[in-house]
Amino acid sequence: MADERDIFFMREALRLADAAEAAGEVPVGCVIVYGGEIIARGRNAREEERHALCHAEIAAIDAACRARGGWRLSGCTLYVTLEPCPMCSGAILNARIDRVVYGAKDPSMGALGSVLNMCSYPLGRRPEVVSGVLADECSARLRRFFASRRRTEG
Amino acid sequence: MADERDIFFMREALRLADAAEAAGEVPVGCVIVYGGEIIARGRNAREEERHALCHAEIAAIDAACRARGGWRLSGCTLYVTLEPCPMCSGAILNARIDRVVYGAKDPSMGALGSVLNMCSYPLGRRPEVVSGVLADECSARLRRFFASRRRTEG
Repeated sequence: MADERDIFFMREALRLADAAEAAGEVPVGCVIVYGGEIIARGRNAREEERHALCHAEIAAIDAACRARGGWRLSGCTLYVTLEPCPMCSGAILNARIDRVVYGAKDPSMGALGSVLNMCSYPLGRRPEVVSGVLADECSARLRRFFASRRRTEG
Repeated sequence: MADERDIFFMREALRLADAAEAAGEVPVGCVIVYGGEIIARGRNAREEERHALCHAEIAAIDAACRARGGWRLSGCTLYVTLEPCPMCSGAILNARIDRVVYGAKDPSMGALGSVLNMCSYPLGRRPEVVSGVLADECSARLRRFFASRRRTEG
């Protein structure tokens, strides 16, 4: 279940989604929290970095591993504005993140419940997953971004 | 189907697995081939780098995106000694890699046929997958590594 802290940290992830949008990227933002504090932030940067791995969650997991000095992020909660794709869901499992809170569902690539549910497979310790936190605000940004892109391209 | 070129490139991936083992890592190696040439190499470095993302495939995809100057690796074949995990399988999809050739199956984390089959879901364009190339040599390295670690730990 989501609580007030979850909404607080999702608002920070939304600020990172806004930063992605300002840079011309699909607006997705992510923060990782440990001991009640944000230890890592990430935002989508795939076009800027010209790089397949530059999703918000990967950037945040990268930063969190550096902050914690190791590859095990147990005790951490990851907040992300859009449901993680298979790559990011797999990275969350590999990093042993305990809890994932996401906003909008992703019907085309979502791997924590939409297209598939990674947590339904026996892949070691799987995180608790909470979805739909500030979902309207998260998906409104995505809709706005794709609508403006269609106008530009059309 | 595998052919002689596949065996040639898998031997190069095995050399990278050996390099990982020499560094005390689980022996997994990977190369990415475009236009008949190796454009990127990677090996497992999770313990050294203290980093959840440092699988061989991620290192190679990272290098290949830099080599190609973009996030789309269509036209590429990825060779890896061990069946990709969910994170790496997802990265392969995100990078639009056309073909994956792997050696040994991974019954605990394999996401291209063993624990799950990522290619069975409607996740955009999915690669052709060939498994079992030099599988005995690939898995022998893994068995030797874990046996020696058990001896050290026991």
